[in-house]
Amino acid sequence: MAHKTFEIEKKVRMQHCDPGGVVFTPQYFNLFVEVLEDWFADALRHPFSQLISQDSSGTPAMHIEARFHAPSKLGDTLAFRLHLERLRSSTALIHISARCASERRCSMKFLYGFSRLGSFGLTPWPDELRERMAEFLKE
Amino acid sequence: MAHKTFEIEKKVRMQHCDPGGVVFTPQYFNLFVEVLEDWFADALRHPFSQLISQDSSGTPAMHIEARFHAPSKLGDTLAFRLHLERLRSSTALIHISARCASERRCSMKFLYGFSRLGSFGLTPWPDELRERMAEFLKE
Amino acid sequence: MAHKTFEIEKKVRMQHCDPGGVVFTPQYFNLFVEVLEDWFADALRHPFSQLISQDSSGTPAMHIEARFHAPSKLGDTLAFRLHLERLRSSTALIHISARCASERRCSMKFLYGFSRLGSFGLTPWPDELRERMAEFLKE
Amino acid sequence: MAHKTFEIEKKVRMQHCDPGGVVFTPQYFNLFVEVLEDWFADALRHPFSQLISQDSSGTPAMHIEARFHAPSKLGDTLAFRLHLERLRSSTALIHISARCASERRCSMKFLYGFSRLGSFGLTPWPDELRERMAEFLKE
Repeated sequence: MAHKTFEIEKKVRMQHCDPGGVVFTPQYFNLFVEVLEDWFADALRHPFSQLISQDSSGTPAMHIEARFHAPSKLGDTLAFRLHLERLRSSTALIHISARCASERRCSMKFLYGFSRLGSFGLTPWPDELRERMAEFLKE
Repeated sequence: MAHKTFEIEKKVRMQHCDPGGVVFTPQYFNLFVEVLEDWFADALRHPFSQLISQDSSGTPAMHIEARFHAPSKLGDTLAFRLHLERLRSSTALIHISARCASERRCSMKFLYGFSRLGSFGLTPWPDELRERMAEFLKE
Repeated sequence: MAHKTFEIEKKVRMQHCDPGGVVFTPQYFNLFVEVLEDWFADALRHPFSQLISQDSSGTPAMHIEARFHAPSKLGDTLAFRLHLERLRSSTALIHISARCASERRCSMKFLYGFSRLGSFGLTPWPDELRERMAEFLKE
Repeated sequence: MAHKTFEIEKKVRMQHCDPGGVVFTPQYFNLFVEVLEDWFADALRHPFSQLISQDSSGTPAMHIEARFHAPSKLGDTLAFRLHLERLRSSTALIHISARCASERRCSMKFLYGFSRLGSFGLTPWPDELRERMAEFLKE
């Protein structure tokens, strides 16, 4: 069945690189979160600022699995692709991969939950948000 | 068989926390890398500054799996424990977990390789470094 | 005399905000460096990746003065403007300011030098780069 | 007149360094904020976690002036010294300098205010906190 993919490019900047001249692992996760933020803002029309400030909610990471296939250097343009692998009432398994030109750089799965700020127990995604997320589900 | 464990405490600081008041996922990875740096410097007596500047080498992350059990807040003291799950000629599977008092916060496995800067192909760990690492191997 | 101004917008993201929900001071400096990187890449056509990897050079900050007029929150769009206040053979005094809609948020002056990597002594800007920089000089 | 100085050492870590192998300017500010956090927690006995979570307050930076005298490299141990240059009812001008062995690396002045979270108007320092801060005032 057809499904949507969210795609966005990011540049490898000074702040991402370590003394070895390649992306520093923790900074990769800043890039992944940027992709997630852009997906929420641009595709799901529910930006994190609304999620946190108005809904007093958050999306805690519960499980992360990341594979790094080849290093990324300062100035590289990374093409990120995002889709959903699973969508439950209060969690989502998100797949993000990055390429530079034709080379596969990394891929990761994030299991995110939805919760009220101040609690760690999960709560169901808002209906409208969940419907928009479902369009990115790869079956 | 007996094996060593490397233990170190880290405080959750301003720089680690997001607008939700808990540790921001990418910043968790900065804490994990700090633990790794301390292990190399304090236990393996082979600090990253030597590894990078003198040996022109690095330890690229190849695979990461992380589980987050409960959120960590500003001011929390996290007790990290590190041991090795597997040690091969040019890779190491490192296990790090964090607790705050009696509560399990997160645990992760990092598969690191050893390589010369500028290449992504792996190369064997220096003998002396590998011997010291082996003491932290849990069989 | 007419002079150019470099303008670019940046969004305040999760990674920039502290538990108080506003931009964390050190993260402001990441935004300023992004503006500088974009100026070098897009306006001066001499990206940092070329400066560092090919020219083995860098632009060490020598003096920074920053004023913060009002806080910036998650989701704000900051409009940055950059011009030069002074250009010498091996230094440049760069002025960057940020607004959100009609509100002044911050302004800063950076005195940057040009140097070869591994030395801290300064060396003259490459001629072509210096000529392009001069177009942004406010007299 | 005698006054106290707060001193603490910090190591230059992977996360602080850029592809040029020296401390990346924005990361310097993370180190300065760490020094400030340690001063509040260890010397003033009023940690930021209490300030933010219990007092719903913060210390917005209003003006920063920083001078960088020589670069700092991965593995360097920086000795930070902090004292106060001025203390008003709702602001403090804080001086922090860093050395590595006998070499001066950087020095900066931070003008911080005290405010309630959610407002940018300033409010007086709590009396007890202000009294402890006053011991670090250099006259």
